[in-house]
Amino acid sequence: MALTPYQQLEQEFRRLHAFRGALSLLRWDAAVMMPRGSADVRGEQLAALETEHHALLTTPRVARLLERAEAGASQLDDWPLANLREMRRQRDHAISTPPSLIARLAKATARAEVFWVEARKTNDFKLFAPHLEEVVHLVRDKAALLGQARGLAPYDALVDVYTPGISTADIDTIFKALSRKLPGLINEAMEVQSQQAPLPIVGKFTVARQRQLAGEVLKAMGFPFDRGRLDESEHPFTEGVPGDIRVTTRFDPNDPFTGLLGAVHETGHAMYDLGLPQQWRDQPVGRDRGLALEESQSLLFEMNLCRSRSFVRYLKPLLEKTLQVSGPEWSEENLYRHLVRVKRSLIRMDADELTYPAHIMLRYELERKLLEGALPVADLPEAWNANLDQRLGLRPGNDVEGCLQDIHWAVGHFGYFPSYALGAVIAGQLNEALRAARPVLDEEIAAGQFGGVMEWLRDNVHGIGARLPPKELIKEATGKPLTAAAYLRYLESKYLEAP
Amino acid sequence: MALTPYQQLEQEFRRLHAFRGALSLLRWDAAVMMPRGSADVRGEQLAALETEHHALLTTPRVARLLERAEAGASQLDDWPLANLREMRRQRDHAISTPPSLIARLAKATARAEVFWVEARKTNDFKLFAPHLEEVVHLVRDKAALLGQARGLAPYDALVDVYTPGISTADIDTIFKALSRKLPGLINEAMEVQSQQAPLPIVGKFTVARQRQLAGEVLKAMGFPFDRGRLDESEHPFTEGVPGDIRVTTRFDPNDPFTGLLGAVHETGHAMYDLGLPQQWRDQPVGRDRGLALEESQSLLFEMNLCRSRSFVRYLKPLLEKTLQVSGPEWSEENLYRHLVRVKRSLIRMDADELTYPAHIMLRYELERKLLEGALPVADLPEAWNANLDQRLGLRPGNDVEGCLQDIHWAVGHFGYFPSYALGAVIAGQLNEALRAARPVLDEEIAAGQFGGVMEWLRDNVHGIGARLPPKELIKEATGKPLTAAAYLRYLESKYLEAP
Repeated sequence: MALTPYQQLEQEFRRLHAFRGALSLLRWDAAVMMPRGSADVRGEQLAALETEHHALLTTPRVARLLERAEAGASQLDDWPLANLREMRRQRDHAISTPPSLIARLAKATARAEVFWVEARKTNDFKLFAPHLEEVVHLVRDKAALLGQARGLAPYDALVDVYTPGISTADIDTIFKALSRKLPGLINEAMEVQSQQAPLPIVGKFTVARQRQLAGEVLKAMGFPFDRGRLDESEHPFTEGVPGDIRVTTRFDPNDPFTGLLGAVHETGHAMYDLGLPQQWRDQPVGRDRGLALEESQSLLFEMNLCRSRSFVRYLKPLLEKTLQVSGPEWSEENLYRHLVRVKRSLIRMDADELTYPAHIMLRYELERKLLEGALPVADLPEAWNANLDQRLGLRPGNDVEGCLQDIHWAVGHFGYFPSYALGAVIAGQLNEALRAARPVLDEEIAAGQFGGVMEWLRDNVHGIGARLPPKELIKEATGKPLTAAAYLRYLESKYLEAP
Repeated sequence: MALTPYQQLEQEFRRLHAFRGALSLLRWDAAVMMPRGSADVRGEQLAALETEHHALLTTPRVARLLERAEAGASQLDDWPLANLREMRRQRDHAISTPPSLIARLAKATARAEVFWVEARKTNDFKLFAPHLEEVVHLVRDKAALLGQARGLAPYDALVDVYTPGISTADIDTIFKALSRKLPGLINEAMEVQSQQAPLPIVGKFTVARQRQLAGEVLKAMGFPFDRGRLDESEHPFTEGVPGDIRVTTRFDPNDPFTGLLGAVHETGHAMYDLGLPQQWRDQPVGRDRGLALEESQSLLFEMNLCRSRSFVRYLKPLLEKTLQVSGPEWSEENLYRHLVRVKRSLIRMDADELTYPAHIMLRYELERKLLEGALPVADLPEAWNANLDQRLGLRPGNDVEGCLQDIHWAVGHFGYFPSYALGAVIAGQLNEALRAARPVLDEEIAAGQFGGVMEWLRDNVHGIGARLPPKELIKEATGKPLTAAAYLRYLESKYLEAP
């Protein structure tokens, strides 16, 4: 029997899925295994496969099949219908940016990245500025084209690439609520914490022991080491596909926490991917629901579940066993104080849970202005410093600690930053619903039992894949529309508890 | 300026080169890094990329460009001309096998491999036979089509896939010479060696120390660890592309030699790939000159250069240092005796340098008969046993030690085996020419200096890429047509030297 247009599309996207998996492995290898001198060769391979992926997605055949399948969409069930919608979305995104613009962006960002590295070495923003300007210019074009294709305002269209279905209006509402509450909350939390400074934790914690520790925690969380790996890289990340998922972290011999929590954070991503609907695993509807949802899962694991008293209860004996440590600084109370310490910082990557959103809101505000032309690139350093000063009362002493700290803009990632803070907000709302549904959660975590968490997440988040738009998914999972309320309640109760 | 048809072809093949590199990395990862449970996912990725590679190579556009470039070939220089010839060869190979036959072969070999594994477990050839029969049937069809496309007899066309430009007539001549000489030589060598049994080498040699040993030897040979890796896998192999070359070996804690010599063997392949003409590295003419030449390089390293008295002189202090061993069994003479020990065996993979060709000639004879229909699959076990008995005076006690020992036929690799023995013959001829050109070779090897070897190989073999057909390449490199003479001289002088 002949395949329907929809079924033919499934075949096409199955092939694209395999390409994505191959690309992911090439990136993983580049960061974890590849010899230093092989970057050029790898770059050629990535470019060839990405180009081909793009070409396969944008053939006239796919366009025709989409039209024919959409004409017969009334006969499709829920999942295939959602799948068709996601196919259309992917294809429209791909076709909206002409290959010439893609090529110019690739060149401009490659150059900008080189000068970004150089500018950081010499603390010389001026070196980077013209290249950032070129990138901003091209991203503006891309945003306009994407917006036309998707019927969205330009910046909304960029956000839509990473987190579909969330608008700048949504973000503005949420960020306004955060801006209102967080500065006071930070002050109060620091006041509370000033009365309970933790005992310092010092020592050398070998990478081998930390690796064992992280391995045990991940095993308890259900990380499938028969279909996944934990390795080390410069920065933690997750690559791969369900069935071969790869997380990394970086162990610091002077600090027993960052490596572990990096691995836990990435395991939140990995468990999301693993919980995606198996039946749709090689189709667009079987994918995660975008960056903000992805980040909600990693943050739920790291912040809500593991920077907690119950996790510390589970962790303490494990630390003692694997790191062979003991003493008053390893008490549950002291460990917990380390994990929730609030401290204003210049660097986003060093920020704690409470001050982190300020860094994101700064970037969101400035990147919109850059794209709108309201902020000339030359004025970025001063705008950055003033904005941080206003939000956290800190002023960077130089641009390396200021607007040169992130790579995102250099490589053209505009519209990406908001997903970090949205992820935290979503995690807060999921956390509240999860705890309401599962009153025994803290006891389970304290016992190193994560099966209940996973079950709830699979039923309410992971297993939905991309069947629902993010906001609907969150509403179905939590019974409430997406707002900052639950997140703020969570932060308040966590950071304002009596010492 | 518009690109010429030839230049457009170069662009197409540059892309194909990137695909090949990506495929190679996916295979490397599958054997070295991939979690056990991820084989299915990887299979899908490999299939998708291979299918796409095949599709890109066989587009009408490439066919048209080839015709137009060939029409203007008189204006091309040596290298581009040879490149065009290799492009044509690749494309004709690819187009000659219709996708339906490729798909049937893929299915049949996947099934045959499963039953081959099962048949080995239960020593039950009958379980495997019908699946091997199916594979033989399909390979016969493929050989006929390939032969038509290339103007060759069917079996010649299969050999041509792996080792272009070498005919069954060439192989017959060489194998006849080996068959005449080797049986007597084996007898005499074993007679000589019976008077000098080596002291046994026993102990536990940790993988970590063996890895260090192999690393030092490879470094001395010039293996570029900044653009390559040495890892461990079930069987040694080389993957990757020049610029990111990856060799593996397997260390046996009871045996300090196999892991090292496996790594050295693969380094022979790696150095060939690294010495290919840099300017043509992403073009067909910049590739190695087929399997027999590849094998000549690995065998030259392992057998001719390293299973030698001069290499032992270099190796002995290194063994003492890295493995921390000493005693009479670690004398140069005793080490050498271990490295050149001759012993008839049932298993090809366990065979020494002198008895190895007999295993290959057996397979060559039988696979031709299988394809011609002169040997029914059901009669294979008895034919195998009789042939080995005749060649080495050994009879397998069961089929696991007999015709079930190799995976090659199960996965459809017919025409592949001869390249192993041809490689040894070519290595013998290159070795003679290399030593004539470089009288100080033994002193250099004894000092761990491989620069001179590499220079000669680069000038005479590696740097030629695929510009010349193999027989011409060998003639230019050695001044003589390819025969078994030098190889037999080498074996005689090595194995019949006075004790």
